[in-house]
Amino acid sequence: MEPFFTIHHSDTSCSARTGILALPHGPVSTPVFMPVGTNGTVKAITVDDLSAIGFEIILSNTYHLYLRPGLEVISAAKGLHPFMNWQRNILTDSGGFQVFSLAPFRKIRDQGVEFRSHLDGSTHLLSPEGVVEIQTLLGSDIQMQLDVCTKWGVSYKEAENALGITADWLKRAKQTWVEKADNGYEGKLFAIVQGNFFKELRERSAALAAEADTPGIAIGGLSVGEEGDVFQEYLAYTAALLPREKPRYVMGIGTPQYILEAIEQGIDMFDCVLPTRTGRTGRVFTRRGDISIKRADREFDFSPLDPQCTCKVCREYSRAYMRHLFKTQEILCSMLASYHNLYFLHSLVTDARRAIEENRFLQFKEDFLKQYTELPGMGE
Amino acid sequence: MEPFFTIHHSDTSCSARTGILALPHGPVSTPVFMPVGTNGTVKAITVDDLSAIGFEIILSNTYHLYLRPGLEVISAAKGLHPFMNWQRNILTDSGGFQVFSLAPFRKIRDQGVEFRSHLDGSTHLLSPEGVVEIQTLLGSDIQMQLDVCTKWGVSYKEAENALGITADWLKRAKQTWVEKADNGYEGKLFAIVQGNFFKELRERSAALAAEADTPGIAIGGLSVGEEGDVFQEYLAYTAALLPREKPRYVMGIGTPQYILEAIEQGIDMFDCVLPTRTGRTGRVFTRRGDISIKRADREFDFSPLDPQCTCKVCREYSRAYMRHLFKTQEILCSMLASYHNLYFLHSLVTDARRAIEENRFLQFKEDFLKQYTELPGMGE
Repeated sequence: MEPFFTIHHSDTSCSARTGILALPHGPVSTPVFMPVGTNGTVKAITVDDLSAIGFEIILSNTYHLYLRPGLEVISAAKGLHPFMNWQRNILTDSGGFQVFSLAPFRKIRDQGVEFRSHLDGSTHLLSPEGVVEIQTLLGSDIQMQLDVCTKWGVSYKEAENALGITADWLKRAKQTWVEKADNGYEGKLFAIVQGNFFKELRERSAALAAEADTPGIAIGGLSVGEEGDVFQEYLAYTAALLPREKPRYVMGIGTPQYILEAIEQGIDMFDCVLPTRTGRTGRVFTRRGDISIKRADREFDFSPLDPQCTCKVCREYSRAYMRHLFKTQEILCSMLASYHNLYFLHSLVTDARRAIEENRFLQFKEDFLKQYTELPGMGE
Repeated sequence: MEPFFTIHHSDTSCSARTGILALPHGPVSTPVFMPVGTNGTVKAITVDDLSAIGFEIILSNTYHLYLRPGLEVISAAKGLHPFMNWQRNILTDSGGFQVFSLAPFRKIRDQGVEFRSHLDGSTHLLSPEGVVEIQTLLGSDIQMQLDVCTKWGVSYKEAENALGITADWLKRAKQTWVEKADNGYEGKLFAIVQGNFFKELRERSAALAAEADTPGIAIGGLSVGEEGDVFQEYLAYTAALLPREKPRYVMGIGTPQYILEAIEQGIDMFDCVLPTRTGRTGRVFTRRGDISIKRADREFDFSPLDPQCTCKVCREYSRAYMRHLFKTQEILCSMLASYHNLYFLHSLVTDARRAIEENRFLQFKEDFLKQYTELPGMGE
């Protein structure tokens, strides 16, 4: 059988590496940025455009799909892929993060986590076993264990407690997933490392995740309110604890800086709503730093969003037109800005892969960030 | 010089005819439905998709563009075509209709119509000459004279007064347009027939429009609140008054019934916001009548929006998915519904053209409407 993850090349000057994930809906080149399609659609972009940009995998949210349209509908559609008409891979999260961030009430029990829906207040229970069942029913190519995520600033005791539950739930998730795999399910399960901002706990959680021997491992509990240097420190520290041969996924990061930092530390996968969410607010990436298309001085600015970008939006539309669309609240503004921002991150990661293959990732990162953060034109 | 309008074939059984408009941005086959791009974008669809569907001309609104982004911006962009990246033809209205329907205040003076912006209350004046100047600056392929539109139910005297002003403004518009044309402007000017629901006034207005000898003539003041049978009566009556050799345009109609009625009466052009506006509210055309995708019984309905439609939305997405997108307020819902509705009307008109060429338009209309209005599945 084809191995799930093959490392193609490791940069000689840092931990960055390229590789291939062999997944049910086609191979995925890593490092990879995954757009987020919360409700079974990446907001304001078609699957045709996602394919055209070159995305090989997107993320969707179990919590949201479980509540709407509900599992019966997706089951009747024969899975999330046909439901949303996406032919390539889908990673689903476990719903744990949303339970902790969106639900107005939740309580951790032995069985799992009980919560009230943020939509209608109805009560639900997600168990580690049930979450594997759900993601299997969705047809996820990669699924996540149910975990307990903690915010920046919690006590050691609280973080340790969350870690313990996460580890227990990992065992139960693994067992259910093995049963599913024995019955022909081809999706892969990822463990999640927690431990908040305590190195000892990160170590313990990483060891437990490695021991569970899932196909891949995610680093959770980062980008939860901490400062950038703390993020970097704990990202590097945790990544180094993980087995080299497994793909590593950091959840919820999407700024160019964080992505490059993650790649340098040997992270293979990341996702974020950032490119589409900020796109809808009129913020777009450029190689000289992010810009707001709302600004008055864009009114007569007929240059592309990013003069260095080769995407169809930058080839065909001006900042002045984008500003006009934003001011008139036209849907096309969200469509074009989301497309550009996704294309931008896809290009960034594609360029990073090439740099790794040529053992020049650190130089690439330095050059990119110098232009992105230091040259005139950024930081608006 | 190539004639502006060539009639290709007249159906032997009614007044319907096919033809070609020779316009600066390519030929347009008639009868033609024109999507409306109020703010320089047809809502929730890209120009690439408009081209792919096959639209050869779209409409945009002078009133809206004049207020936002303003003429200076579009002038700096070298016209509306490059500004919005649309390579084919654009028809612009005169702004008159919007002044009467949107502006919180307006007063007709000798010079033109003074009004307050519905956006910021600022005061503006549109004159018949100025409106030609504006549309020329926009680079419109077809432009409309400034006119005075009246609602259903006004008095004879009020309708006659509006007609008189419209006729006076036509002369002034024509003169300015001739000057522009002499200076190289290639867009065409259309006169507008008013007269409300008084046959004598319609006759007088049609005669004045014919006398002015503009390249085309529009029938205004229909679909302003009257019943369907009154619409039909006055459409037929007015159309028959117009010179056969000029293209005839009815403004603001977009239901399949009204479009087919207009084609039967020898109308060549029509436009409406209906397909995109209703699409955004979850209503879509089908050959068995319009349906709402919101309805609860769509939840498990995995059939296409319209099983008889060949558009990419109908080939690739289900009603159940569309309902889910609507319930979760996803932008993709507006995108896909707008695409389908525009494709539907484009197909309807394309089929109508073929039927005319084969002298079977009346049969085509009867067959279409029977299925559209009478068979099970419609009228939701």
